[in-house]
Amino acid sequence: MCQLLGMNCNTPTDIVFSFTGFATRGGLTDEHKDGWGIAFFEGNGVRHFVDYQAAVESPVAELIKRFPIKSKNVIAHIRKATQGQVTLENCHPFVRECWGRYWVFAHNGDLKNFAPQLDGAFRPVGNTDSELAFCYLLQQMRRRFGEHLPAIDALSQFMREITTEIAQYGTFNMLMSNGEALFSHCSTKLFYLVRQHPFTTAALADEEVAVDFSEVTTPKDKVAVIVTEPLTKNENWTQFAAGEMIVFVDGDVLPV
Amino acid sequence: MCQLLGMNCNTPTDIVFSFTGFATRGGLTDEHKDGWGIAFFEGNGVRHFVDYQAAVESPVAELIKRFPIKSKNVIAHIRKATQGQVTLENCHPFVRECWGRYWVFAHNGDLKNFAPQLDGAFRPVGNTDSELAFCYLLQQMRRRFGEHLPAIDALSQFMREITTEIAQYGTFNMLMSNGEALFSHCSTKLFYLVRQHPFTTAALADEEVAVDFSEVTTPKDKVAVIVTEPLTKNENWTQFAAGEMIVFVDGDVLPV
Repeated sequence: MCQLLGMNCNTPTDIVFSFTGFATRGGLTDEHKDGWGIAFFEGNGVRHFVDYQAAVESPVAELIKRFPIKSKNVIAHIRKATQGQVTLENCHPFVRECWGRYWVFAHNGDLKNFAPQLDGAFRPVGNTDSELAFCYLLQQMRRRFGEHLPAIDALSQFMREITTEIAQYGTFNMLMSNGEALFSHCSTKLFYLVRQHPFTTAALADEEVAVDFSEVTTPKDKVAVIVTEPLTKNENWTQFAAGEMIVFVDGDVLPV
Repeated sequence: MCQLLGMNCNTPTDIVFSFTGFATRGGLTDEHKDGWGIAFFEGNGVRHFVDYQAAVESPVAELIKRFPIKSKNVIAHIRKATQGQVTLENCHPFVRECWGRYWVFAHNGDLKNFAPQLDGAFRPVGNTDSELAFCYLLQQMRRRFGEHLPAIDALSQFMREITTEIAQYGTFNMLMSNGEALFSHCSTKLFYLVRQHPFTTAALADEEVAVDFSEVTTPKDKVAVIVTEPLTKNENWTQFAAGEMIVFVDGDVLPV
């Protein structure tokens, strides 16, 4: 199994604190050593870093920890290979373009006997069930909505249907973003919290690091963090229900 | 105008030497300070780094110079904005997937009144003429060959036709790769050389750096380097003719 980390905010925020704890699980406090990746939206652009080295040993991961990239939507992944070899093309997150927007996707879990018909619009480069699910999802999304990005409500409804459909084939914990919304689906395990005013000090569970967020935020800031296992030991994380999908926009849970 | 750098080899090779000289032009020895980018194929995967900071100031460029990523196909770009704002989504190289392969593209030049019909299969995320040309090229490629990657000869013939067509709209110096071949088209300025046995010492034109390639290669190695302005002062660079397209595979010029 792999681990997922997502962040969705109303103002560009760096993920150094959360990524530091998360990356520690990539080979040090946990066994997820078969690669890792992270994608940051900046405006409509994406910075995409993937590596098949363990996150704790990767010079690129070191860069991410030292170089505070500010973003409103981030998706990260550390991998323990279950399907597909340990190669660069099998590292999450995956990126594709649809409707002139980039879409970023990462998955934790295993899909069994999942062999959807692909029409060629989006095809996997590697050989993971995850990238196949992403390509199928985008294909169905474009079929449903035609030539234009739909409104967020319609898109959220589609995402609820397609994630439920794919989750019938196994475990489908996933994060996906187009730079505005962050869609998160839980099959088995996913937690989130929203940091907002009044901000307090948070202490990482995996390293001896604490940050007083009141010193680095403004009262208007809202930062949602979504993760496989809670990253901090002194904050209240909300666990997703099995089968639940939550859409985050501007650091808030979008009402269903 | 921007500058291009490409490398195509028969064995995974690091580009630290060439990139060091090239990145110096991004704000220090030359005026190309509106961002930069580089993409490395590793197997079928791609490492893609883009930044809107000048290459000489970018911490990511520092990482590339210190961390020798080995690749058989690399495309890099430093940008002086002529069309499109200085934003991440306008930084070259651009990456798309077609036929389950990644395609990487960078362009130097300006296209005027270039407004091709796009059917939606590939759409620009940013607002440069370059990304538009890339999307159009991929669309026409998929229309021509249908559902499968064609053989290299057919693909090269198509590339000759489409680059000639696009170059009618202005200056179209470009590099494109799918991880096997590197396609290069020259409108106005492009040089290449093939380093092979017996290897010698090369000295950068832009920095006081020299490398004795005989110490870091085997006699079988072949490394083609393609660039807007020669990178070294003691090697014989071949200038492309105007309108010429050259295809590199395994470090060699593919016969026409």
